[in-house]
Amino acid sequence: MIEKKITAANLETVPLPADLPREEWLHRLRHSTSHVMAQAVQELFPDTKLTIGPAIEDGFYYDFDSPHRFVPEDLRAIEDKMREIVQRNEPFLRSVHTKQEAAADFKRIGETFKLEILEAIPEETISYYHHGSFTDLCEGPHVDNTSKIRHFKLTKVAGSYWRGDEKREQLQRIYGTVWPTAQELEDYLKRMEEAKKRDHRELGPRLGLFTIQHDEAGSGFIYWMPRGAVVRKTIEDYLHRYLTARNYQFVYTPHVARIDLWKTSGHLDYYSENMYPPMNLENQPFQLKPMNCPGHILIYKSTLHSYRELPIRLSELGTVYRFERSGVLHGLMRVRGFTQDDAHVFCQPEQVESEVVDILHIITDILKTFGFSDYDIKLSTRPDKFSGTLVGWAHAENALQNALKKVGLDYTVDPGEGVFYGPKIDLKIKDCLGRAWQCSTVQVDFNNPARFSITYRDEKGGESQVFMIHRALLGSLERFFGILIEHYAGAFPVWLAPVQAIVLPISEKFNAYATETMGRLRRAGFRVEMDGGAEKVGAKIREATMQKIPYLLVVGAREAENKTVSVRTREGKDEGAITLENFSDLLKKQIDPIWDSVIPKA
Amino acid sequence: MIEKKITAANLETVPLPADLPREEWLHRLRHSTSHVMAQAVQELFPDTKLTIGPAIEDGFYYDFDSPHRFVPEDLRAIEDKMREIVQRNEPFLRSVHTKQEAAADFKRIGETFKLEILEAIPEETISYYHHGSFTDLCEGPHVDNTSKIRHFKLTKVAGSYWRGDEKREQLQRIYGTVWPTAQELEDYLKRMEEAKKRDHRELGPRLGLFTIQHDEAGSGFIYWMPRGAVVRKTIEDYLHRYLTARNYQFVYTPHVARIDLWKTSGHLDYYSENMYPPMNLENQPFQLKPMNCPGHILIYKSTLHSYRELPIRLSELGTVYRFERSGVLHGLMRVRGFTQDDAHVFCQPEQVESEVVDILHIITDILKTFGFSDYDIKLSTRPDKFSGTLVGWAHAENALQNALKKVGLDYTVDPGEGVFYGPKIDLKIKDCLGRAWQCSTVQVDFNNPARFSITYRDEKGGESQVFMIHRALLGSLERFFGILIEHYAGAFPVWLAPVQAIVLPISEKFNAYATETMGRLRRAGFRVEMDGGAEKVGAKIREATMQKIPYLLVVGAREAENKTVSVRTREGKDEGAITLENFSDLLKKQIDPIWDSVIPKA
Repeated sequence: MIEKKITAANLETVPLPADLPREEWLHRLRHSTSHVMAQAVQELFPDTKLTIGPAIEDGFYYDFDSPHRFVPEDLRAIEDKMREIVQRNEPFLRSVHTKQEAAADFKRIGETFKLEILEAIPEETISYYHHGSFTDLCEGPHVDNTSKIRHFKLTKVAGSYWRGDEKREQLQRIYGTVWPTAQELEDYLKRMEEAKKRDHRELGPRLGLFTIQHDEAGSGFIYWMPRGAVVRKTIEDYLHRYLTARNYQFVYTPHVARIDLWKTSGHLDYYSENMYPPMNLENQPFQLKPMNCPGHILIYKSTLHSYRELPIRLSELGTVYRFERSGVLHGLMRVRGFTQDDAHVFCQPEQVESEVVDILHIITDILKTFGFSDYDIKLSTRPDKFSGTLVGWAHAENALQNALKKVGLDYTVDPGEGVFYGPKIDLKIKDCLGRAWQCSTVQVDFNNPARFSITYRDEKGGESQVFMIHRALLGSLERFFGILIEHYAGAFPVWLAPVQAIVLPISEKFNAYATETMGRLRRAGFRVEMDGGAEKVGAKIREATMQKIPYLLVVGAREAENKTVSVRTREGKDEGAITLENFSDLLKKQIDPIWDSVIPKA
Repeated sequence: MIEKKITAANLETVPLPADLPREEWLHRLRHSTSHVMAQAVQELFPDTKLTIGPAIEDGFYYDFDSPHRFVPEDLRAIEDKMREIVQRNEPFLRSVHTKQEAAADFKRIGETFKLEILEAIPEETISYYHHGSFTDLCEGPHVDNTSKIRHFKLTKVAGSYWRGDEKREQLQRIYGTVWPTAQELEDYLKRMEEAKKRDHRELGPRLGLFTIQHDEAGSGFIYWMPRGAVVRKTIEDYLHRYLTARNYQFVYTPHVARIDLWKTSGHLDYYSENMYPPMNLENQPFQLKPMNCPGHILIYKSTLHSYRELPIRLSELGTVYRFERSGVLHGLMRVRGFTQDDAHVFCQPEQVESEVVDILHIITDILKTFGFSDYDIKLSTRPDKFSGTLVGWAHAENALQNALKKVGLDYTVDPGEGVFYGPKIDLKIKDCLGRAWQCSTVQVDFNNPARFSITYRDEKGGESQVFMIHRALLGSLERFFGILIEHYAGAFPVWLAPVQAIVLPISEKFNAYATETMGRLRRAGFRVEMDGGAEKVGAKIREATMQKIPYLLVVGAREAENKTVSVRTREGKDEGAITLENFSDLLKKQIDPIWDSVIPKA
């Protein structure tokens, strides 16, 4: 066995400033805990090699190359060992070395991955961090003493690749979390448990919402099952009616275009690594669309436009295809094809502000309808490299800023973080677990109008270049659906619920009345099913509750005689026996206000 | 100048049977007229070489290789020369020759394309057809005498390629038509003129319905402009509501899948030349979907199914991409990407007949709603090569035939013309000009259920293979939209019209009342615009009529005072001044019955 210990002279203690911001302190704590975990793993499994072990959001991980296959039970043993190390009360110490010294050290102890890391470091000297007998190649900083590490938990083992590259060594990643107090750890673990229960990847197939056919069709492609498709169609219709009532015009554009279009738009220059490879038809290359903008521009350009017609607002539920590495794909949240609720506003410069005001009103109104009224807003301004003119940028940045103020939205400015083609407003919604999700975006574009020479006949009879605003409300329908599933834990509000009520006859004798009831409610426009199986009604109630159907309508002799239904909610509340008319009213009260709200007040 | 004349001994006359079927007689007449046209062209333009000149539907063409660039005015001169030839009263004569003789003849007179045709003929002998001084390599048959050719017209010149191959010589094709009587010729020309006025390729962009961006984005890809998108969305919503009310479940499936899916489905074996080429992502090939079936099968397979759940009817407005040669692309009718109103019914064998009965009812009902109640129906049965069992085929053919009889539809049987995977029913609709268009199809599929092993848990607890029915109602939304545009000449019925009414103030003074009127009608759910420009109301009426908007609502002082609108139809009928309520009722009476009809009678 190799002697794993590295020793060093000129050790320095690690200062821990008293006024350290919480985020920085948490980062040090988490990174330090990953060192302690690495030590524990090597003490328990001495043949394990180290690779990298960073702090991440809410915790840390370390990627190990080990002949031992880590199972969940190992995590408890590693935690025990970590507690033992922590109780040794070892200080974190730092030392500086030349790369040559370091290479010799890591070669001697057999840490070959560290040698590869060393090679990639351009500086002449590097630092070690030590605690007890453990030393890691590390930039730091850390906490001052292992005793600071008290409230931690290892959460899971997952596969990973060295350098994130599938062709390199397969590694095992152990994740953990650590917090300053026991309460914070407990809260976090509860939140995680809740999030797990709400995981859309588990709920989606179980509730018949969507499926991903990794083996047959490939990861990253979403198959919307019937119940999920009902939710999507409801969202689509809502957006369609809402936006049509606000003078948006819908279009449909193809998913494929000649490569020349992507040359003109600049996607081939700036975005080709996100695009699918070309397909040759009769020796001409074609490519899938990664964005809808060029298609909308072609429609705008296909006729002449006068200033009197502007703004023209072209909208599409457009499915785009963007390449993502298979390693980063994640359920509905990160996919290889998704549908944007996209629009492009073609307007005069002086219309930008009022258009953005309208868009911001639309965004906040729509998000509220879907249950989100808490968000972070960021305004990103001109970066160093940009297209367009300084005057144009100043005008657009002002317009965005004024619009945010007029609508009364809190926002922070991210200077220089705009896209090269224009300034933008990004909005992240917060779900019921406090997690933030990027959804809406409003971006001014100086690049496409110039590249495609899109103009309008101005008041003086000349040709002026249009201002173009990109905007998405929900962002990606797939991603937003994932967020919705987790936000509602699959229990969608009545207007979105794929099945709004289910009729449960207490025995097959009442199937005729149940069928009649279902038919009447369906003809009244509600989404209603029935469970006419031979199971006991208790089993039917359990199943319908598992399916998160808002209303369970139990029917037996009394209901059949009185032409009523006994209403039970998915939360288990008993609403008693009511007539179908009253039940219809109950549904209508929850559904109609949503659809009424699509019509702007006169 | 080369002496173009070929002479031959042993000339035979061409017999013209008295009982020749009309179609055969027309074919001879048309082919003979193409010979006369070729002679006329060579007499007028002696340097012209001949290639091929067949009879086609309603007429004929001849492809010429000529240094002269034919313009429309030439056609009149060629017609005059043809009349002169016809009046020579020349008999058509036939002679038989060896290929060597023929090669020597055509080489001598410089008809090099004929030499190439000769080379491709496997037989040892060929025939000439002669009339007067003109001889052509030709299989015949022809009419007996040029005097039979009386009622003809040359209709257009178009570019073509030798052998249809873009890399070969570019030719000029002259089209003509010929009929037995003057009346038939006149009727045909009127029909063509009417068809030209209705040409969707001209009406589409002019009415803001769709555009094809040949240069920028490629031919064969449809950009639905705002007004066309309104029609499409209306059709989609109609189909969605109609089918949902009949227990169809909608799904959405991606446009891209791993190549493995197309291996399993057999598309790579049987359909790959119609598919777009593969795209590699991380060294795995992916391909665009040419059909929706495999996606629906994956959704069916993603959960277990009991016989109690069957039939399961999965439906999608699924956009598929199929390669077509650029030469055959035609407006909306033949494209490289289109949206099918597709469904797959998964059922037990004994359910096939009743499912097909339902589907046939749905087809005829829906087609009637869109204005089509005249059609040709064909039942195609087992071909020589087939998948599945003889018993299965017999069962499915019987089911289809019984269903056609039960619904009371006239049909013809096309023996052996089924697809290899199962028998099918095809339905062609006839438009207002009597032209037939393939739209609906119902096909049983024995292939996919076996390839994907899709089963259900049967009554005995075993696993049985499902019967699968493919069906499309309108076929391709793009194509159907093209048919609709031509059928209605762009004047869509009110429920489909992208703009249902337009408010036309007689001067800008009444723009406020016009705006109020538009707003009230919009809030009532109608698609209404206004023309508040400075033009005279006469010009506004002309423009709105050109745009084929069903109702023109003229408003001035009297209307503003009485809160009325003066209603005028696009056909020019004056309906007088009526209140908005009465006008709303007028619209409702035309729209509501359509939407009411989506709900099946209780």
